Amino acid sequence: MSIYIELADDIERQIRRGVLRAGERLPSVRALCAARGISQGTVMQAYYLLEDRGLISTRPRSGYYVNATARPPMPKPTMPTLEPEPVHIVPSNLLYSVLNGIKQRENVPLGSAFASPLLFPLPKLAQLLGSAARRLDPWRIVDDLPPGNADLRRHIARRYLEMGADVDVADIVITNGASEALLTCLIATTRPGDIVAIESPAHYNTLHAIESSGRRAVCIPTCAQDGLSLVALEAAIAAQDIKAVWAMPTFQNPTGATMPAKNKRALVALLARHEIPLIENDVYGELYLGDERPVPAKAWDRRGGVLHCGSFSKSLAPGYRIGWCAPGRFHETVRQNKFLLSIGTNVAAQAAIADFLQHGGYELHLRRLRNALRNQRDQLLRAIARHFPAGTAVSRPAGGYVLWVQLPEGSLDTLELMRRALDEGVSLAPGALFSPNGRHGNDLRLNYGHPWSAEMERGIETIGRLASAAAPTRLLPGPAKATPVQLARLRSPPGLECVDD
Amino acid sequence: MSIYIELADDIERQIRRGVLRAGERLPSVRALCAARGISQGTVMQAYYLLEDRGLISTRPRSGYYVNATARPPMPKPTMPTLEPEPVHIVPSNLLYSVLNGIKQRENVPLGSAFASPLLFPLPKLAQLLGSAARRLDPWRIVDDLPPGNADLRRHIARRYLEMGADVDVADIVITNGASEALLTCLIATTRPGDIVAIESPAHYNTLHAIESSGRRAVCIPTCAQDGLSLVALEAAIAAQDIKAVWAMPTFQNPTGATMPAKNKRALVALLARHEIPLIENDVYGELYLGDERPVPAKAWDRRGGVLHCGSFSKSLAPGYRIGWCAPGRFHETVRQNKFLLSIGTNVAAQAAIADFLQHGGYELHLRRLRNALRNQRDQLLRAIARHFPAGTAVSRPAGGYVLWVQLPEGSLDTLELMRRALDEGVSLAPGALFSPNGRHGNDLRLNYGHPWSAEMERGIETIGRLASAAAPTRLLPGPAKATPVQLARLRSPPGLECVDD
Repeated sequence: MSIYIELADDIERQIRRGVLRAGERLPSVRALCAARGISQGTVMQAYYLLEDRGLISTRPRSGYYVNATARPPMPKPTMPTLEPEPVHIVPSNLLYSVLNGIKQRENVPLGSAFASPLLFPLPKLAQLLGSAARRLDPWRIVDDLPPGNADLRRHIARRYLEMGADVDVADIVITNGASEALLTCLIATTRPGDIVAIESPAHYNTLHAIESSGRRAVCIPTCAQDGLSLVALEAAIAAQDIKAVWAMPTFQNPTGATMPAKNKRALVALLARHEIPLIENDVYGELYLGDERPVPAKAWDRRGGVLHCGSFSKSLAPGYRIGWCAPGRFHETVRQNKFLLSIGTNVAAQAAIADFLQHGGYELHLRRLRNALRNQRDQLLRAIARHFPAGTAVSRPAGGYVLWVQLPEGSLDTLELMRRALDEGVSLAPGALFSPNGRHGNDLRLNYGHPWSAEMERGIETIGRLASAAAPTRLLPGPAKATPVQLARLRSPPGLECVDD
Repeated sequence: MSIYIELADDIERQIRRGVLRAGERLPSVRALCAARGISQGTVMQAYYLLEDRGLISTRPRSGYYVNATARPPMPKPTMPTLEPEPVHIVPSNLLYSVLNGIKQRENVPLGSAFASPLLFPLPKLAQLLGSAARRLDPWRIVDDLPPGNADLRRHIARRYLEMGADVDVADIVITNGASEALLTCLIATTRPGDIVAIESPAHYNTLHAIESSGRRAVCIPTCAQDGLSLVALEAAIAAQDIKAVWAMPTFQNPTGATMPAKNKRALVALLARHEIPLIENDVYGELYLGDERPVPAKAWDRRGGVLHCGSFSKSLAPGYRIGWCAPGRFHETVRQNKFLLSIGTNVAAQAAIADFLQHGGYELHLRRLRNALRNQRDQLLRAIARHFPAGTAVSRPAGGYVLWVQLPEGSLDTLELMRRALDEGVSLAPGALFSPNGRHGNDLRLNYGHPWSAEMERGIETIGRLASAAAPTRLLPGPAKATPVQLARLRSPPGLECVDD
């Protein structure tokens, strides 16, 4: 556990036991630093967290004080149980119109899937891109065809070593962002008509890849805190001929959930037993907001059954479209599928990112980015606590830059909420975007990838106000009708638990 | 018709009528230029063509002379009739191993799908890439999401205007090369399980896209000179529920064929009548070796049913992975599918290519590139005539940089020929690569995208020698077994003609 969470927990216990009483001032940041031998940033994080839990408040130029009536912390979202029947995902016009609304730059970007481009070292990257392009041997156009630039693969392999994963330079294939890595892995491990287990809720790119390639999906309940339910997955495997699992065990998009390390290990063991490949989407892995990078499932892979996919789009170079995968024993098939799907990947961009990893100060940039994101997450959590209706539940991601909000039962459908918010210039990502069968109408995904500002505060205030307004009847036919599903008739196992513990 | 072909035809008539007799010297290049008011290059092209037709020969430092016994011109390949039953394409391990052999840089690149990178203005592009990246507003990362960079789309739209096609800036979507444009158009116009009409032989990327996305293919006979057979296509449409046609009407890969303009117009009309979209691959369109760019099918599209796909990878910037499509009435669906498939396209590369089109000297570069390719094509045709066995047929492409060779009946299977040639350091692309059901074992594709050299001459000599060697029995089980197909049981229409006239 992170030091700041430990500290916050300690202080919370002291408050609950009455050691620290309502109205009393907390120790000054400096005093706590000295006493515990920790940094000022860590103490501030702990205090932010306690504020977020409703236990303390700040008074200008005075410090932090214990609240008179400690507001209970916002609950965590609960996830519905699902019947794991395979679904044919149908292309959704709804999805298209929603994504259009989110993209508009004039809207407060709470529905966005991107972080602010201002958080990235774009001038340095531009300089490296220019010099890499000028230096480039023309024959690299041929040499850097899949698997891709050898220097870049070497730097990526080095990072795997630090994560404890057994991945060699030759095991890596460079792709057009992680989207292409994931699609290529899907195509390499399954055939049209095959059943793939995915998370529910899942990222819409996952739903699209499954749909457009003619695979079928089985939705596995995914807890907004601990991720994929292993109990549910095991039941689904027993019931059906699942050919691959596609999941995001770390900082999942859209929930922000992270599977505990022991669950990841168990996941890899379960799938190895059944010889089912795991397509692991780990694009946010470097953006941990605690003390350490969560170990990917790939680190427990001893049989080459985990196809680990990463990207520099989230951590270093948005707009460069450089991702990769480490597809284990599927390496050769993945490499050829990448070549057949889109031939190569921009040669100069590969070289520029290799140069940045070599001497651009990647670690320093990552530390700054994580600090910014940590602060933005805490600001967003506090703003939600201030403005959203009582009974709202929210996930507390330990990394990445999205979190999951569940409105109280009977609230306005979040698709309609989105439309009303867009009318006021604020975007959000409604839950229906992340479900192949119209679930999650009560839920929404919010983005904290942008520096906090009065505009962001207004955005959250707007969504909170609209969500608090009475919602007598749902004004829309509801996403279940907008995205019809065609259920395959297969044996349905007993109801499944959401959280696996 | 091109001026040089007209001139060559005139001279051939004079030879055949006896106006010019065996052993007589042809007019000097300078004299013909003056007499006809044409350029020296045009006359040289005509003489190359006549040499290729076996009618004249050059004597060092003396000029061109009529041959004693005019060797008949090499015949054009004939294409088998096909039964247009839909096939489920199965992923081919054969394909993977073949592509690996072709990629090796130490081999003479006659099997390659690429042109020499030295033919492209890479230093100028590198300079523009660096300056574009440094100047770039960070928010372009969001703004240049699909449909993509507006300047680049404007320059592309301008070129459509010159071709007589009705395409506006807003109609264009930028993609990761043409491969992604084509895949996106396939996904946007069809559903898994749908039947798509493709050329036979077809490019292996086409076969892969159909296979990996769970569509089925109907193979339409494609003549190595005049392209897709309209008679066969019409019969296939009558027999089956074809949802899209994917074709390369100009400088087809692998044959080099170009549909006559009237066939293109008839193709567009036929498909409009049946409301079937045409996915038009036109990546070689700018590389015409005659006087004018052949008009794409898109130019006759009045209903938005033609999805025209292009790329700068073949004509300007290999390794940059910038392509596009003009998907007509499917624009919105294509744009969203591009976003869902791979989010965006490298932002700096888009800007750099826009800058090159603005003031990089694209037309001058294209003229140089076409001159080089014309010379290389003629060199390759002459070398084939010198070294390949009697009875070999060859296509004479009017553009692009691949041509199609048909060995005499009973020759060594070209897959085995490829293996033997690779042993001697020479690559070629065997016909089986371009067929979903093991056809074209007698055929091969050769590349003239590389400057002619002693190595290239040795490559052709090697292939010709190996092909000439007796082939008592086929040593391999043959591609029909290597790529099994699963035939859907559908009504089979009567036998079809190859060439539609």
